[in-house]
Amino acid sequence: MITLASDFGSPYPAAMKGVIRRHTSAEMIDVAHDLPRGDPRSAAFWLRFVLPEFPPAVHCAVVDPGVGTDRDALVVHAGSHVLVAPDNGLTMPPARALAGEEGPEAFVVDVEDPASATFHGRDVFAPTATRIRAVLDGGPDATTPADVADALAAMDDLSPAADPVDLTLPEPSVERDGDGDAVAVDGEVLVVDRFGNAVTNVPGELIRGREWIRVNGELTPVAETFGAVDSGDRLVTVGSHGYVECDVNDGRGDGAFDLRPGSEVRLVADNVSL
Amino acid sequence: MITLASDFGSPYPAAMKGVIRRHTSAEMIDVAHDLPRGDPRSAAFWLRFVLPEFPPAVHCAVVDPGVGTDRDALVVHAGSHVLVAPDNGLTMPPARALAGEEGPEAFVVDVEDPASATFHGRDVFAPTATRIRAVLDGGPDATTPADVADALAAMDDLSPAADPVDLTLPEPSVERDGDGDAVAVDGEVLVVDRFGNAVTNVPGELIRGREWIRVNGELTPVAETFGAVDSGDRLVTVGSHGYVECDVNDGRGDGAFDLRPGSEVRLVADNVSL
Amino acid sequence: MITLASDFGSPYPAAMKGVIRRHTSAEMIDVAHDLPRGDPRSAAFWLRFVLPEFPPAVHCAVVDPGVGTDRDALVVHAGSHVLVAPDNGLTMPPARALAGEEGPEAFVVDVEDPASATFHGRDVFAPTATRIRAVLDGGPDATTPADVADALAAMDDLSPAADPVDLTLPEPSVERDGDGDAVAVDGEVLVVDRFGNAVTNVPGELIRGREWIRVNGELTPVAETFGAVDSGDRLVTVGSHGYVECDVNDGRGDGAFDLRPGSEVRLVADNVSL
Repeated sequence: MITLASDFGSPYPAAMKGVIRRHTSAEMIDVAHDLPRGDPRSAAFWLRFVLPEFPPAVHCAVVDPGVGTDRDALVVHAGSHVLVAPDNGLTMPPARALAGEEGPEAFVVDVEDPASATFHGRDVFAPTATRIRAVLDGGPDATTPADVADALAAMDDLSPAADPVDLTLPEPSVERDGDGDAVAVDGEVLVVDRFGNAVTNVPGELIRGREWIRVNGELTPVAETFGAVDSGDRLVTVGSHGYVECDVNDGRGDGAFDLRPGSEVRLVADNVSL
Repeated sequence: MITLASDFGSPYPAAMKGVIRRHTSAEMIDVAHDLPRGDPRSAAFWLRFVLPEFPPAVHCAVVDPGVGTDRDALVVHAGSHVLVAPDNGLTMPPARALAGEEGPEAFVVDVEDPASATFHGRDVFAPTATRIRAVLDGGPDATTPADVADALAAMDDLSPAADPVDLTLPEPSVERDGDGDAVAVDGEVLVVDRFGNAVTNVPGELIRGREWIRVNGELTPVAETFGAVDSGDRLVTVGSHGYVECDVNDGRGDGAFDLRPGSEVRLVADNVSL
Repeated sequence: MITLASDFGSPYPAAMKGVIRRHTSAEMIDVAHDLPRGDPRSAAFWLRFVLPEFPPAVHCAVVDPGVGTDRDALVVHAGSHVLVAPDNGLTMPPARALAGEEGPEAFVVDVEDPASATFHGRDVFAPTATRIRAVLDGGPDATTPADVADALAAMDDLSPAADPVDLTLPEPSVERDGDGDAVAVDGEVLVVDRFGNAVTNVPGELIRGREWIRVNGELTPVAETFGAVDSGDRLVTVGSHGYVECDVNDGRGDGAFDLRPGSEVRLVADNVSL
């Protein structure tokens, strides 16, 4: 299986699929092709959320603001998975999630002159993913991390990456009271989804058990589900990724809370009962 | 085969596909993931239109404004097809279309605590569809309604749904003349598609043979094809779903006729020749 | 393999997939379903760009402003590929790219009364692609142009197209200096992609080696990559399709250069060094 993720829109990913299909019959599954344009951090967030749901696979992820510059093409070994992507850090958060304790290991691809300077998805990353897929499919079942390591070690166009770009999603800072309970958290918005839900970097456990919380000063109910508040009302919830989201039932949280990716979010505990 | 439909946008459906692929190699086909948000009625209309084109399949359809509340998860047996969806009525119109005279039969899924309160597509519906697919694929060919009924009866986490939410797409009211011909119809807009075509609940046969009709008072040509009127001109046609649409050739009918889902549409026969 | 391209949005293509899946298990790959509405020329550009990446396949392409009129349904033999599409010219540019020196050969499909007047994607083109796929899959491997020709010759509902609509993407006019170097080119914008890149009909080799060029009078750097200019700055580059694009790094070229499909673009060589 090869998964495909990009910010390419359409029909560019189809060109990648044609290239892949010329050389392998492996299944292709789209993760997304409308990732925020040229934003490796958002891509990293979404891939960290989605890729761990998959069985062992080769994941080709191209959000590549540096296309055509001398940035490297990377192959990252992460547990039983392999990621193929430009060296801008986007693979690191999902690779850490996939690799477990062992941690990910990055290789630089020895790329020959690509056919274009602007479409390395077609000319570099899809062919690389295809070759890795073929090596994995040609060997033993390759479902353990050790099998994958062996397969990658056998490829003579990969060399260990000396200093791959790392990218760490920002961590919130937490103030705690004498009992160790979080009373205030300074975080930020990581991504906004199609529904307008503003997903922060604040882990859900920091607000669990609270009924109300101040979001940038505004008292807001904490709810498990959208349906717990009236249509059009604001709420704070813990999304399926485990992070605090600022939402509106039947509406857009980004608009109501005036938040966009990168916006600061200060959450303050408030034990009000109304 | 498992079809997938939702209002999730991207990349949430990929997480569902990962979950499915961990347990079955069954083919996955997307119906749509941009169904109108939180609107089971629109979803029901589109699924009733699309699903009958498919061979026997498991259809996983998640438009779920009540996610995380105590609404049930349903499995609906409809002919040689199975639908898996939240209990909000969205399955009923397509299930009736798929089931034929026998009618659909609904079961409640005994759901264990899902991992999230907000992403039951991943945590409840995809796993349920996967298990049903595995049972169907493990038994005989399961292409007849009786085979499917047997397979579902063998699953011990399904129990008959006592009172599933029904949802009936609204029916127009028709005034007829002495000969029984429709002379006026009061209907409403069910959905608006990507082209801005406003699809009503008025069956096409009610206007067939007419050359002109008044749409909310406005005299409008009835045509078989967009090309029958000039670019930018309004027309009324019978769409591929068999219902009357209010359209504009090379333009948007919703704007020109001032219609949106739920808008009332009064069609009055007019034998004018201009 | 059957590829699918259209301007249908969603969920119409799923109805086509259901129809195809009722009769063949051939793989289906989406090229795009958000092609510019009713615009065969844009479709032709994108298909000419994408389809040559694929191994031999049946390509079903439906951008069909004349649906329901008496325009023919075409099957076009192009090398080891087959295109199925309305007779409005959209197949011709990709078919010429796929066919090589031999050139494409078009057949008219003898269409029986389709179920709808407005959704020939479902009622005419998908069934035709399915039947061709079945004939190809039932015969020898059908990977050579001669195999494909034999398969099509065996289908009794195809007859040679006497006068298929041709569509030729416009060619730019070029002024050269005494050495034969291009000094001015009058071209036009063919398409604008998701990034706002305005893709012209000017072959990249006409500007290769230049460092600056005037685009409709405005001095603009020629660069190999977006990253060569600052974020927000304009550039001219050669896209992965081989044509000159008017772009903005991290922005939209169509807005900055005031260009849309069909806009005239005059490129004038300028040997300025700033």
